[in-house]
Parts: sequence; C-alpha cells; structure tokens
Amino acid sequence: MSRKIRLAMIGTGWMGHVHSEAYRRLGPLGLLPQAEVELALVVGRRESTARELQSRYGYTRWSTDWREAVEDPSIDAVDISFPNALHHDIAIACARAGKAALCEKPLGLNASESEEMYRVAEECKVLHMTAFNYRWVPALIFARSLIESGELGRLYHFKGVFCQDFAADPDVPFTWRFGADSAGAGSIATLGSHLLDLARWLVGDVASLASLTETFVEDRPVEAGSASRQPVSVDDTTCLVMRFKNGAVGTAQTTWVARGRRCQLELEIHGSRGSLIFDVQRMNELQLCEEGPIEKRGFKTLYIGQHHPYGQVFGLKTGMNLGWRDSFVLQACEFLKAVVEGTRPRPSYYDGWQADRIVEQAVAAARKRAWVDL
Amino acid sequence: MSRKIRLAMIGTGWMGHVHSEAYRRLGPLGLLPQAEVELALVVGRRESTARELQSRYGYTRWSTDWREAVEDPSIDAVDISFPNALHHDIAIACARAGKAALCEKPLGLNASESEEMYRVAEECKVLHMTAFNYRWVPALIFARSLIESGELGRLYHFKGVFCQDFAADPDVPFTWRFGADSAGAGSIATLGSHLLDLARWLVGDVASLASLTETFVEDRPVEAGSASRQPVSVDDTTCLVMRFKNGAVGTAQTTWVARGRRCQLELEIHGSRGSLIFDVQRMNELQLCEEGPIEKRGFKTLYIGQHHPYGQVFGLKTGMNLGWRDSFVLQACEFLKAVVEGTRPRPSYYDGWQADRIVEQAVAAARKRAWVDL
Amino acid sequence: MSRKIRLAMIGTGWMGHVHSEAYRRLGPLGLLPQAEVELALVVGRRESTARELQSRYGYTRWSTDWREAVEDPSIDAVDISFPNALHHDIAIACARAGKAALCEKPLGLNASESEEMYRVAEECKVLHMTAFNYRWVPALIFARSLIESGELGRLYHFKGVFCQDFAADPDVPFTWRFGADSAGAGSIATLGSHLLDLARWLVGDVASLASLTETFVEDRPVEAGSASRQPVSVDDTTCLVMRFKNGAVGTAQTTWVARGRRCQLELEIHGSRGSLIFDVQRMNELQLCEEGPIEKRGFKTLYIGQHHPYGQVFGLKTGMNLGWRDSFVLQACEFLKAVVEGTRPRPSYYDGWQADRIVEQAVAAARKRAWVDL
Amino acid sequence: MSRKIRLAMIGTGWMGHVHSEAYRRLGPLGLLPQAEVELALVVGRRESTARELQSRYGYTRWSTDWREAVEDPSIDAVDISFPNALHHDIAIACARAGKAALCEKPLGLNASESEEMYRVAEECKVLHMTAFNYRWVPALIFARSLIESGELGRLYHFKGVFCQDFAADPDVPFTWRFGADSAGAGSIATLGSHLLDLARWLVGDVASLASLTETFVEDRPVEAGSASRQPVSVDDTTCLVMRFKNGAVGTAQTTWVARGRRCQLELEIHGSRGSLIFDVQRMNELQLCEEGPIEKRGFKTLYIGQHHPYGQVFGLKTGMNLGWRDSFVLQACEFLKAVVEGTRPRPSYYDGWQADRIVEQAVAAARKRAWVDL
Repeated sequence: MSRKIRLAMIGTGWMGHVHSEAYRRLGPLGLLPQAEVELALVVGRRESTARELQSRYGYTRWSTDWREAVEDPSIDAVDISFPNALHHDIAIACARAGKAALCEKPLGLNASESEEMYRVAEECKVLHMTAFNYRWVPALIFARSLIESGELGRLYHFKGVFCQDFAADPDVPFTWRFGADSAGAGSIATLGSHLLDLARWLVGDVASLASLTETFVEDRPVEAGSASRQPVSVDDTTCLVMRFKNGAVGTAQTTWVARGRRCQLELEIHGSRGSLIFDVQRMNELQLCEEGPIEKRGFKTLYIGQHHPYGQVFGLKTGMNLGWRDSFVLQACEFLKAVVEGTRPRPSYYDGWQADRIVEQAVAAARKRAWVDL
Repeated sequence: MSRKIRLAMIGTGWMGHVHSEAYRRLGPLGLLPQAEVELALVVGRRESTARELQSRYGYTRWSTDWREAVEDPSIDAVDISFPNALHHDIAIACARAGKAALCEKPLGLNASESEEMYRVAEECKVLHMTAFNYRWVPALIFARSLIESGELGRLYHFKGVFCQDFAADPDVPFTWRFGADSAGAGSIATLGSHLLDLARWLVGDVASLASLTETFVEDRPVEAGSASRQPVSVDDTTCLVMRFKNGAVGTAQTTWVARGRRCQLELEIHGSRGSLIFDVQRMNELQLCEEGPIEKRGFKTLYIGQHHPYGQVFGLKTGMNLGWRDSFVLQACEFLKAVVEGTRPRPSYYDGWQADRIVEQAVAAARKRAWVDL
Repeated sequence: MSRKIRLAMIGTGWMGHVHSEAYRRLGPLGLLPQAEVELALVVGRRESTARELQSRYGYTRWSTDWREAVEDPSIDAVDISFPNALHHDIAIACARAGKAALCEKPLGLNASESEEMYRVAEECKVLHMTAFNYRWVPALIFARSLIESGELGRLYHFKGVFCQDFAADPDVPFTWRFGADSAGAGSIATLGSHLLDLARWLVGDVASLASLTETFVEDRPVEAGSASRQPVSVDDTTCLVMRFKNGAVGTAQTTWVARGRRCQLELEIHGSRGSLIFDVQRMNELQLCEEGPIEKRGFKTLYIGQHHPYGQVFGLKTGMNLGWRDSFVLQACEFLKAVVEGTRPRPSYYDGWQADRIVEQAVAAARKRAWVDL
Repeated sequence: MSRKIRLAMIGTGWMGHVHSEAYRRLGPLGLLPQAEVELALVVGRRESTARELQSRYGYTRWSTDWREAVEDPSIDAVDISFPNALHHDIAIACARAGKAALCEKPLGLNASESEEMYRVAEECKVLHMTAFNYRWVPALIFARSLIESGELGRLYHFKGVFCQDFAADPDVPFTWRFGADSAGAGSIATLGSHLLDLARWLVGDVASLASLTETFVEDRPVEAGSASRQPVSVDDTTCLVMRFKNGAVGTAQTTWVARGRRCQLELEIHGSRGSLIFDVQRMNELQLCEEGPIEKRGFKTLYIGQHHPYGQVFGLKTGMNLGWRDSFVLQACEFLKAVVEGTRPRPSYYDGWQADRIVEQAVAAARKRAWVDL
C-alpha cells in the first residue's frame, strides 16, 4: 500500500524547474516505490510562470500566493525556492503549519534568520532540509564514507575552492547577485555556502577563521550593452584560512572572476593515512591516495559508478557519467523518503544555518581584519 | 496546435528502461513543444516485465506480441530494443506498416540483415534511425561542427579505443555476449559498433582495413560461482588499422578485458590545422588544439556547456555535467521531432548498416588475415 | 679573450653537490663562453667531505675553514651552502672582502639577519644572489614573461601550495628540520621560502597576511626505529591568506604531511585577461588560459621546450623534459655571467630578505592570531 | 685501483654532443667509481666540428678519420653516432678491432646491415650496445620490473604511439629525414625504432604485423622560405597492428604531423592482473592500475623518484624531475660499466637488429598490403 504525498512547489525560477523535473523522474526511475507523489501545487510570483510550470511538470494547480501552500491541509511537503529574502517567512509558516519542507540555499538572508528557521522547525517538530545538492553527488558520498570509516585517518587539511568565471568580463551586466542589499554577500554567499557546507560535512565544524574579500570589477553595466554602470557592492573573491573543531586546518577560496575556471568546485583533504581530491567539473571521479608501499604512493583516479553509493539507480555502468541534474533526483528522493518514513534527514536547516554562519563570519572577519571564533 | 504522437516501445530490457525514461523527460524539459507524446504501448516478451514498464513509465497498455505495435494503425512511431536477433523482422514489419522507427544498435545480426532493413525502410519511405546515442553527446556534436567548419583542416589520423574491463576477471560468468551464436562477435560488435559509427560520423567512410581478434579468457563459469565452465567463442579484443575514403588513416581497438579502463571510449583526431581528443568517461570535456604561435601550441581542455550545442536544454552552467542518460533524451527528442516534422534524421539505418559492415569486415579480415576493402 | 673566474664553494652537503655539478656542466653545455671557470676551493666542515668534493668535482684545493675562501685574494666568487646558521657571517665576510656571492635559501636565520646581509652587500657594492633555483625553471620564466607582457591583464589571485609528504609517517625520525632552535620554522621556512619568493616574483610584494600554523605529528623518534621520541617544535603545516601591494589577493599553504603530494609546488594565477597554472612535479608544462571566444575558453597544456626561454641550451625538442638539476645549471650560469659582466642579478639578497620577512611574519601572524602588515 | 677506460667518440652531431656531455657527468655524479674515463678521441667529418667537441668536452685529441679510433690500440670503447649510413662499416671495423661499442639507433640502414653488425660483433666477442636511451628512463625500468615480477599478470595488450608535430607545417623544409634514399623510412624509422624497441623490451618479440603508411605532406621547400619544393618519399605516418610471440596483441602508430602532440611517446599495457601507462612527455610519471576491490579500481599516478630504480643517482626527492639528458648519463654509465666488468649489456646490437627488422617489415607489410611474419 503506497502512501500518497502531496507536494507544493514555491518557486518558478531555475531551481523551481530543476527540482520539479527531479520529482517527475522519481517514478520512472523506480525510486520511492513506497509512495505516490502528487505535484499538487506550484506557486509563482506571476501567474504566467506559475502556469508554465504547471503545464510543464503537471502540477495539479497553481497560485501566486505562497500562503496557499501553507494553509492547504492536504499538502504534505513544500519545496521552497523563492528568492532568498522570502525563505525565512515561508519556512517558518510551513513549520508552524506542520509541513515538511526542503528549502534552497542559502537558507536565510543572514545567519540569525537561518537560526530562527531552524529553531522554529525544531519546536514544531517538522521535517526540514536544506537543498545542498552537492551532498547527493555519489562521488562525494563515497568520499565521506571513506572518511567515516577511517580510511583517511585523522584529518589534517582541507583545501577547497569554488572558482567560476561567469563574471570575469567586466561587461557582464549588474544583477541582484552584485548588490549587497539584494544578495548579502557575493561569491562567498553564492558559491561559498556550497563549499563551506561540504567542508563541514566532510571534515567537521569550523572553529575559527580569518579572511579577506575583494571586488575587482568595481562597476557593471546596468544592463547588457549599456554605457551606464552601477557599482558592485559585494565581493568578487573571498579567501580564508580556518581551523576546524577537530583540529584540522584549511584554506578556502570563492570567486567568479577566475578566467578558465568554469565551475571548479574542488576539494582536497589530507589525513594521517590518506588523501582525496574531488572536482565537481568531473563529478563522476574521485582521486584517492591510500596507504601502501612508498614506491607506489600516489593518487588513483576512480570513476564512480555501479559499485558506489546509488550505483544502481540510474542503470549506468562504471565510467558512464551521472549528470548534475541527477544529483537533484537523489535529493528529491531522500526528501520525500524522509517524509514517508518520518525520519530526520540531513542536510537540515541546522546545516543551512551553520553554512550561513560561516559565510557571515567570513565577511565579518574580512571587515574586522581579525580572526573570528564561531 | 500540437500534434499527438503515439509511441510503441518494443523492449523491456536495459535500453527499454533508458529510452522510456528519456521519452518521459521530454515534456518536463520543455522539449518538443510542437507535439504531445503518448506512450501508447509497451511490448515485452514476458507479461511481468511489460507490466512493470507500463506502470513505471505510464504506457497506456502493454502486450507480449510485438506485432501488435506494428498492426495498430494508431501507432506513429516504434522504438525497437528487443534482442538483436529480432531487430530485422520487427524493423521490416514496421517499415512495411509505414511506422517510423528507432532501432537499437547493432542494427542487424549481420550486415546483410542491416542492409535489408535499410533498403526496405527506404522503399517504404518511412523514417528510420539507429540508436547510436553517443552521436547526441554535445561535446561530440561540437567536435563534429569544428571538423565540418574546417577548423581541423584536412583530416589525417583517427585513433579510437573502446576499452572496458567488466570481463577482465575470468570468473565473470558466461552470458549471451560471450557466444558467437548469440552475439555474432564480441567486443568488436558490442563496443566496436559505437566506436566505428563515431569514426564514420566524424571522419568519413572506411575504405579498407586489416585487423586481429583475440580471446584471452577462453572459458567462463556457466553461472556465478560455478565450477563448470563454458568456452568463449567471441573476441575479447579486436585491433585494427584502416584507411578512410577521404585519405585519412587510423587505428581502433576494442576490448572488455583492459584492467582500469572502465568505459574508455576515447577518440583522437589530427588534421592539418588542428586536433581534438574526447573520452566518454569525461563526456563534458573536449580537448582541442588549434593553430597559433608555436610556443603556445597545445591541447586546451574545454568544458562543454551552455555555449555549446544543446547548451540551454538542461539549464546547466558550463562546468556542470550532463550525464549519460541525458544523451538519450536528446536522441528521443530528435527522433520524435523528425516524426513530427517529416524529416530524415541521422544516424539512419544506413549508418547502422555501415557500422555493421565494418564490424563484420573487421572480423572477416582477422579470420582471413588479410586487408579487406569495404 | 675569455676571463678566468675562480670560484670557492663553501658547503659540502646536498646543495654543495648539486651546485658543484652545475658549475661543471657549464663548459660542456657551451654556456658562459666568455669565461673560464676554475673550481678553485671547496670548504667543508670536515676534511673527509671536503676532500670528497674536491676529487669528485675537481676543485683545485680544499679547506675546513671558510675564512680561507674570503681571505684568498684570487677568489672571485663564492657559493655559500653551509648550514643556515652560518649564512649571515659568511655572506657578510664575503661582502666586506669584495667577493661576489650566491647564497642558499633561506638567506638568514631570520629576517633581521637577511636584512643585514643585504645592506652590507649593497654598501660594499658586491654582487649578491639568493639561490632560489625555481626562478630558473624555463616554464616559470615563460610564465613571468606572459605576466610582464600583460597577457594575463591585471592580476587578481594567486593560489600557491608547496605540499610534500616526506614527513607524513610519524615514525620519520627527528632531524634539525623539526626543531625550532635549529630551523627557525618548519614547512613554512623550508618550503614556504621557495613558494613565497615565487609569489613575489610572479605577482609582486606582499602587503599583509593572516595565517595559522599547526603541528600534527607532535613527536618523532630520536632516530630511526628508536622508541624514544623528541617533541617537534615547528609547524608541519602553515596556511595563509594575503594581500599583495598591487591589489591582488591570495592563499598559500605549505606542508610536509600531505599524503600523496610528493613534491607539489603548484601555483595558479588569475588575471583580468587570462590565467596560468604550474606544478613543479611537471616542471616542463604550463597551463595557460587566454582570452578568446567563450565556447573555447579553457586551460591549454603547453610543453615547454625549444621555443621557450633557454630553449636551445640543452638541445631538447619540445616535449622532451628538462630536469630539476638543469635549473641549477641555469642558476650557476646566470650567477657567473653576472660576475663576468658586472651586472646585478636577481634574485638578490633583497629577494632572500623579503622571502624571509614574509615567512617570519607568517609565523608571527599565526602566533598573534592577527593580520600583520609587511 | 680504478681501471682507466679510453673512449673514442665518432660523431659530432646532436647525439655526439649529448653523449659527450653524459660521459663528462659520470665522475661528478659519483658514477662508475671503479673506472677513470678518458675522453681520448673525437672524430668528426669536418675539422671544425671535431675541434669544437674537443674543446667543449675535453677530448684528448681529434680526427676527421673514424678509422683512427678503430686502429688506435689504446682505445677501449667507441661511441658511434655518425650518420646512419656509416654505422655498419664503423661498427664492424670496431668489432674486428676488438673494441667495445655503443651505436646510435637505428642500428643499420636496413635489417640485413643490422644483422651483420650483430653477427660480426658476436663472432668477435666484443661488447656491443644500441643507444635506445629510453630504456634508461627510471619510470620505464620500474614499469619493466613490475611486468617481470608478474604484477601485471599475463600480458594482453600493448598500445604505443610516438606522435610528434615538428613536421606538421607543410613549410618545414626538406631534410634527409624526408627522403627514402637518405633515411630508408620516415616516422616509422626515426620514431618507430624507439617505440618498437620498447614494445619488445616490455612485452616481448613480435610475431607478425599488418600496417599502413601514408605521406600527407607530399612535398616540402628545398630550404626554409623557398618556393621550390621537393617530393617527400617517406611516410609521415605509420599505423600497425601486431601479435607478440607470447600471445599479446597490440597497435602502434608513429607520426610527425600530429598537431599538438609535441613528443608523445606513450605506451599502455594491459595484463590479466593490472595495467600501466607511460608518456615520455611526463617521463617522471607512471600510471599503474593494480588488483584490488572493484570500487577502488583505477589508475594511480606515481611520481618516480628516490624509491625507484636509480633513485639515488641524481640526489632528487620524489616529485623532482629527472630530465631527458639524465637518461643518457645512465646509458653512458651502463655502457662503460659493462666495459669495466666485462658483462654483456642490453640493449645490444641484437635488439637494434630486431627493431630494424620490425620497422622494415612494417614498411614491407604496408607495401604488400598483407600480414607479414617476423
């Protein structure tokens, strides 16, 4: 007897589309056989986009008012990908209404919003999850299992970068991402929240950090081709050094002006017994250095596939590639599975809050030009 | 006014699943807006599997008799992934019934079957396509566009390998792939038909070849763990040298016993002006060497994404990965788009036939220990 | 008419050997045709090692007193590779005696020693050079020429690591490198002085930094196999963030406990127009990202050879490898060429002093847990 | 009591220089302590070049008549790098005169010359060696030791390429390399003899082969910038498939018109238990795939250094690079060590003959368009 889950999607942007397609793939991929998922409601800020998602993904109905999702007693689960400024109010309303929710990252506009979202969800005893989709990349899940099982020994170093170049051209127009009012911070928020969540997940909680932020492209055209330019008020680049609570140390860098680095989310972790390297541009690979005779010490390139976590889901042979969208399918599956099974999934709002805290403290540490403790 | 297309799937194995999911993703991905696709019928050899695909992918009905797909006048298009031995009869029946069809590779059990499939489809003026899914990998489509536009100049060399290691362990049990009766040939058929189709597509028709085949693992357990072993009667490995009609030359190797080569479908092409390298294990990358000053001559690693063919379909930023399954979505889309628009898509049965011919001649050349002309 | 240069070598350790062989290769390689080099004197602390170098490299005579090199009026140039603690006194004596000198890195035991070495050498108007051999790697010289000519545009980021794993095993015995008294600092001194010199050379002077240091292996056997262990009093690892005076920013890491990283001296530099990557483990390669159409943006792997700086010296075709020892030949050549021509070569003691200052401030910043200005 | 060896060098070209420098480095590197090497005589075809080598490398005397080396009873060993057309006569004269000799590759102008050189040297019981310098690359020596010790199991496949691009530009002028009269064959001789020697050394003797040769650039300027062009009468490219006597199979390709492949001498060998990959452009690396759990199967990148063959000779730490010239030092050392110790070194003239045979049969097989047995 499969249980029926009614899902409401609040959001019609990029992530609204990507998440919606992911839910649609669960059944055809044979995932979540214990439930029947109804895409019950999609909420957009404009009727036109809400209708577009309804027709494309088969939502039962649409609305322009997110409260409808909260107030409808038949809705079991909510997926929140509205603009960041609205995450807080929607998530808290969902919690108070007893709805399970998956919220896009960054969780809140700032860490105090995120903390409140976490605390209210806990008080209300609802299921809550933050959409750090990279936690669902099988290569990283395998990496974490190696760490958990002690194959790397005591962790020493983390080196992480999230370097892109989409904004390297100074004539890339101004958007909300480049304004402090609209985005809070720059590369450290957009890219850094992913990176620092992975640092926490793989290595552990951050104890303290020092950082610097810099804006290399000081203004941008108000729109493509315009001669009128608007000042950029967030960081293009953030660099930080940090100590983890377990004694590991590390560096991190985020930037969107690194020419040639298209989407380099690269992590390197050294421990007393071994090391690993991962780059999301080659998301089906993991480089692993294990113990062994010194003349054979080196990094091995593993293609992640049928013998690794989630290896059977997509019916691929090792060496065939999973795609970035596939990570959202696994995320969608784990969210709804937790709803069905009543478990408490990770990454939760707690994780979203912690990532927001580190980002916030990275910005503060740069501003204060001092180490900060977390 | 969107046209309705009714599709019948004949096949419930691995490819039946993968193709079915691909059709299901067309709508959600906003592809093929000019048509409404009905998954009208799924045909399996056993009721249980047919029913399973029906329920998973939402086929309107199921059958265990493939003739039902052919005889039902409401069916517009047929997808054929039944065992290779049945491709010929089904494809010819489809053609005679006026159905458009996409048939899995290898097209026929041998080149004369394939040729007949092609000739009948042409006579019947039906749309026909062979499911060489790697032709739908955007990195390769980009590669071909570079070749077509002359950026590599006159083509000199092709070097292609399709090396896997799934059969490297001699205790991998005997399956139909290891028997000449059931599979015709070994790695050169299973892996080589993909490789040689890409050689033809990217470089051109093959004029002549010499080859060798070898079986390193001479027998295999009749089933996992069994002490009883059955002789392997097909090649583990085939190596060939060839001349193309346009004057280019090259080598190719297929094998499934190459330890560490998990799914290396790697191509390298040199021309008078430039070169390129591709490996399906890193299907989102292309290495390109262009003309330019000698001190800066080298291969550049391109991450294929939003600025390349089909770059907008999956909503990815450059550096985020497409997956192997995504190539099937593009194949499904192009098949049905051709049905709607009445065009003649490639790769057609002609291409399937040619690949089968080269495979067959590679086996023959090895047996005869002589060069063969195609 | 070629001038005769009489060289004294003060040092019989690893670098004494490597430098000596480099001088011996100048003539056979056709370098420095304008001079005849006499290896006039080798000074060791023990007679046995001094005699060994004399006989191996053909020094005219040997001594156990370094003052002999200083006081002999026939000596033109001195190569100083005695233990670090003696660099200062020897270099100053050389300067006061009017001798040109090449001194191993780190220049002084601390920055104030290095500064004095620099100031005295300047006062005495003698030629002085610091043996940062990586500045003589052709790939890096080519990298610098690209930066100098503006091909990378305005510099944004430097990311540098010097990661080794020779001390990863906690049973690697205690040596002078692991004691603060003997070595001053740990990986940041031994490895960091190279790394930070390259940062200065390629990017520019450092304005400020924050850092952390950590000792993961807290004690080591007093000798191989011993159960008795001695505390390690220097860093295994140092991580830092820094600002350059020209506005660029960056991170750096040094460590000798990074399993699998055998000798990774890797630099990455992004500028407004392009980027480059270098790793000394592949010292004949440079990865370069130039401007160009967005669909072809990526890093190109260049093999450094006959078309690059010093490309003709070793008679190699591009793609054949220079070795690490070859960089010492170029260093030896440039040192003696400056002696002959009366020029002021770089890297000078000034550069050695600056590297020592950054190392010292990196240690201080970690201790104070604060940003420091340089 | 060290024995004195008097060496005569016959050759003043590229290899004359490279070999000469190698002999000069033996003493300084502490190699061959059991002998004192006198560079006794250098022979050039012109007085000027002979004198140049004399002065650069310190030869005792010079001559323009190679018979002087043969006839001088005080000469112990001869190094032959005169033009290929003279190898045969010189080598045979040396043998008859009882001189040990190291001869450059290709050994003879054709296999029958090589065979005679081998047979005469054997009859005369002199030491004979062919200068396949790549056999002295430590990474390859390590590779061979892995194969010898059975770590790869039974050998299945060899894939070798030697691809360069120095002749890719059709305006590269005509030289002796491009004429059949002067060079015998093209890329298959110049590049192929190295490649096929390595194939024999690592895998075993070749039993049979089929091949094709092609000339893409049909004529070249008689000299740089000239409008007058001369026909090219040798192959730019050769491709072959082959069977080894031990049952392994493989492919090989040589070319000098492969844009972007600067000096790619890349070998890949798969066996029943493991695999390895080597490229001379990264001559300090070996990629190795060993047995182990399937989820960790992959190629490991090893940096070859202090823990590998000849690891202590150059005083490098692992990860620091040996250079191409260093391989000649090891070759020179092993040649003279065999002279001192009276051993029979490999690669001998036998190996040179066998490489010439395979090259010759590769050309013949292409001409006959048939398989040939060796």
